[in-house]
Amino acid sequence: MATYETALGASTPDTITLLGTDLARDVMGTVGFGELAFWLATQRRPSPGETRLFEAVLAALADHGFTPTAIVSRLTFLSAPDSVQGALAAGLLGGGSRFLGVTEDCGRFLNAVISTHPEPDDWDALALETVRAQGKARIPGLGHHVHKNGDPRTPRLFQIAEEEGLVGPHLQLFAAIGRAHPQVLGKTLPLNGAGTCGAVLADLGLPLELLRGFALLARTAGLIGQLAEELRNPVANDIFLSVDTNTRSVAPSQE
Amino acid sequence: MATYETALGASTPDTITLLGTDLARDVMGTVGFGELAFWLATQRRPSPGETRLFEAVLAALADHGFTPTAIVSRLTFLSAPDSVQGALAAGLLGGGSRFLGVTEDCGRFLNAVISTHPEPDDWDALALETVRAQGKARIPGLGHHVHKNGDPRTPRLFQIAEEEGLVGPHLQLFAAIGRAHPQVLGKTLPLNGAGTCGAVLADLGLPLELLRGFALLARTAGLIGQLAEELRNPVANDIFLSVDTNTRSVAPSQE
Amino acid sequence: MATYETALGASTPDTITLLGTDLARDVMGTVGFGELAFWLATQRRPSPGETRLFEAVLAALADHGFTPTAIVSRLTFLSAPDSVQGALAAGLLGGGSRFLGVTEDCGRFLNAVISTHPEPDDWDALALETVRAQGKARIPGLGHHVHKNGDPRTPRLFQIAEEEGLVGPHLQLFAAIGRAHPQVLGKTLPLNGAGTCGAVLADLGLPLELLRGFALLARTAGLIGQLAEELRNPVANDIFLSVDTNTRSVAPSQE
Amino acid sequence: MATYETALGASTPDTITLLGTDLARDVMGTVGFGELAFWLATQRRPSPGETRLFEAVLAALADHGFTPTAIVSRLTFLSAPDSVQGALAAGLLGGGSRFLGVTEDCGRFLNAVISTHPEPDDWDALALETVRAQGKARIPGLGHHVHKNGDPRTPRLFQIAEEEGLVGPHLQLFAAIGRAHPQVLGKTLPLNGAGTCGAVLADLGLPLELLRGFALLARTAGLIGQLAEELRNPVANDIFLSVDTNTRSVAPSQE
Repeated sequence: MATYETALGASTPDTITLLGTDLARDVMGTVGFGELAFWLATQRRPSPGETRLFEAVLAALADHGFTPTAIVSRLTFLSAPDSVQGALAAGLLGGGSRFLGVTEDCGRFLNAVISTHPEPDDWDALALETVRAQGKARIPGLGHHVHKNGDPRTPRLFQIAEEEGLVGPHLQLFAAIGRAHPQVLGKTLPLNGAGTCGAVLADLGLPLELLRGFALLARTAGLIGQLAEELRNPVANDIFLSVDTNTRSVAPSQE
Repeated sequence: MATYETALGASTPDTITLLGTDLARDVMGTVGFGELAFWLATQRRPSPGETRLFEAVLAALADHGFTPTAIVSRLTFLSAPDSVQGALAAGLLGGGSRFLGVTEDCGRFLNAVISTHPEPDDWDALALETVRAQGKARIPGLGHHVHKNGDPRTPRLFQIAEEEGLVGPHLQLFAAIGRAHPQVLGKTLPLNGAGTCGAVLADLGLPLELLRGFALLARTAGLIGQLAEELRNPVANDIFLSVDTNTRSVAPSQE
Repeated sequence: MATYETALGASTPDTITLLGTDLARDVMGTVGFGELAFWLATQRRPSPGETRLFEAVLAALADHGFTPTAIVSRLTFLSAPDSVQGALAAGLLGGGSRFLGVTEDCGRFLNAVISTHPEPDDWDALALETVRAQGKARIPGLGHHVHKNGDPRTPRLFQIAEEEGLVGPHLQLFAAIGRAHPQVLGKTLPLNGAGTCGAVLADLGLPLELLRGFALLARTAGLIGQLAEELRNPVANDIFLSVDTNTRSVAPSQE
Repeated sequence: MATYETALGASTPDTITLLGTDLARDVMGTVGFGELAFWLATQRRPSPGETRLFEAVLAALADHGFTPTAIVSRLTFLSAPDSVQGALAAGLLGGGSRFLGVTEDCGRFLNAVISTHPEPDDWDALALETVRAQGKARIPGLGHHVHKNGDPRTPRLFQIAEEEGLVGPHLQLFAAIGRAHPQVLGKTLPLNGAGTCGAVLADLGLPLELLRGFALLARTAGLIGQLAEELRNPVANDIFLSVDTNTRSVAPSQE
């Protein structure tokens, strides 16, 4: 007979524990939500500095205005206002490889390099080698279609990491890639914020397989903000109508 | 030509703002994640006391062990490990009327009473009237299938609300219902934690239509914890096999 | 120890059965997909006439161009092209009360009347009573925002039902409501196609709780068509950009 | 100003067209649901033989009993019975790389070989070369954990394809792989049904990027069957309880 083990939530008639602590007494009123999310993901309670850095990442990723995921969430809420869970879930489903994936891709990319070069003497040499080895392949986290001269989130994340003594190998390699790549690519691209978030999350020891999950957690808060704004100042129907009125019916075309 | 207004995220090549503030300078490193989620939902920055109470609610709702939503998220991750967003979205889709709905139902129920009785002289009299008016209908937030003698989260939420000076009409009415209902129902039921969370969220001025959304936000953090644990100590395949091996094929039966 | 019974798919090392029949020999190559969907839902194999009528309903609901659900599916595919399941799921999540709900609402509404008036002498009298009893409440299935002079799908569904001898009480009551309502409402509204589909599905004996499910099944085929077209002739990025370029950043406004 | 073109659904006040035809007159009552799904995906109306083969694939993939996706759908319906769309969407989200992905993986794998060897003189030689080139990598569609001596769906699909004159290069290569692989692998594995479905769908000219979509369409019908059965003979709560009662709370363990 299988037994299913968990260290997360558990309850008896008189108690509720979470992560081995008394939920009501030791978590509620004491542990912030970002801190709790970190703790749940790692089963290790973060330090105040780790929490601050982690929450800075979540803030950086929470909302970017009318992204496809925000539009999707609002349109789904328009169609099915009785199901808030459906509107949020639909929005999160856009969190795949293209729009929310950079954070995870960058964290994994840096981690793959570091795994095989655990304590490099020279970060710049390793970065140069890394950029060269990519050849024509894109380096995750490099470049931004809007912030061409620099993503304002990037220096802020490095600053907070330094203030908290949390600049680890992923951030170091990423910074070095920022210095080294112009030599190889012949042009200077900014280190984008989403990629820097991935480096930070990897340095914080969060599970690499779930880095995208933290972008999604941040985005859940953002999507609730989008739905709240939609309730006050609706735009989803206008978006739908702007598509509808500009639709042109054409003859079928086979592949 | 339609224009789409938003006060949430916005960016120019050199700046990123969120809620009218400079994201990198004034939010990242300064605003906690719970505080930010509140701010995004109301477009009003909460006080420290409001943030503490709000985060206590999120902690209360984050994870309850192997609930259906947790099982769903793990099984979906087993089937489609390439899509973390799908596993989280599938888990959230269980956040409907039955398992995560009490928070919203209770907040809305209390709010409906208060809307028509804005400043009652006597909360106990109003509670008695409210319980009587329900007849045989269930009062959302009353009773718990496990914590029959009291849900440990409930007194803690009242305590924090009192400490922060945030006991509003929803909590007052809910407390009074806790005192009044035995007289009508002939038995004493505990005020459950999920319902108390709804009363708190309503007192905090969060949008009633989205109360369920905050339960889902809390649960997103919990589900990431579930997936992280599944990666370390997998159980989803065992759950699947326990169903598979106990399946019995029967003849079709028409309705 | 719980046992889980099912009459649906089952397999042994040498056989696969579905609904008690040999899948490979007796279903594949013999049973059409609409017929199979009906059979799965009712555990009763439909007659050819029932299948034809059921498939006419699915055709009526499969695709309506750039609806919110189609836009959502395309935008999600743009954001997460690696997850076709996510794009389809996101599109289906808009199948709630507003855009795809009429079919179920109408079927349930008619069924509620018929349950209490199983064999009326006079459908027109019952319809008149029904319309009057609604007062100012909307009658599901009545009216269409585009097809104001009549929805072309409605007479076709009645015609097919008549050809197949499958005009049951739901269609009879719905037709009678079509005749009776002008007398009460003072204007003539068309019986819309989505509502007629609900009447047909209820007459076919499909489970009322899942009528929306058949609209979703039809829509799944439509959404695959939308994604296939998006691959050949992409528009999702243009839709996103048209929102993006018409966005106006405004100051936060509290509720 | 962007214009959005579509050849799918379109309507004017008096007409509804689908794929350039009159929906009510020329599709409803005439075109079966499988045929329509094919037509929507390719914008080409299939022949009766193509329809029969396509519907055989859909039947082969519709339901396999209590798979993770079926369990997920039932548990989500238990938690949120008000949202059928959520229960179906949650079930589909398990249609990723592991459980429903073989169909797409196999179709793409065969197609990649054929793209570079369009008209081979000798299928067996090409198959041998293909199997050898895989080295230790798994060949999609080869092997089955239950049907070790042969998947009953496979010969049936080949038979129907032959009857309809639709054995194309994907099926030919797949059959040849079935003959060639023992020579390389030193053991005989069956060609599984899901993989054969992928070969068939590719031969039918359906878009490779969406092969998984057809498995999901088939599964949507299956999941409606699961939910209908859950309504009549519920098991989801028993599944939940069997997990709940076998849960063991353990101490947190950090990664």
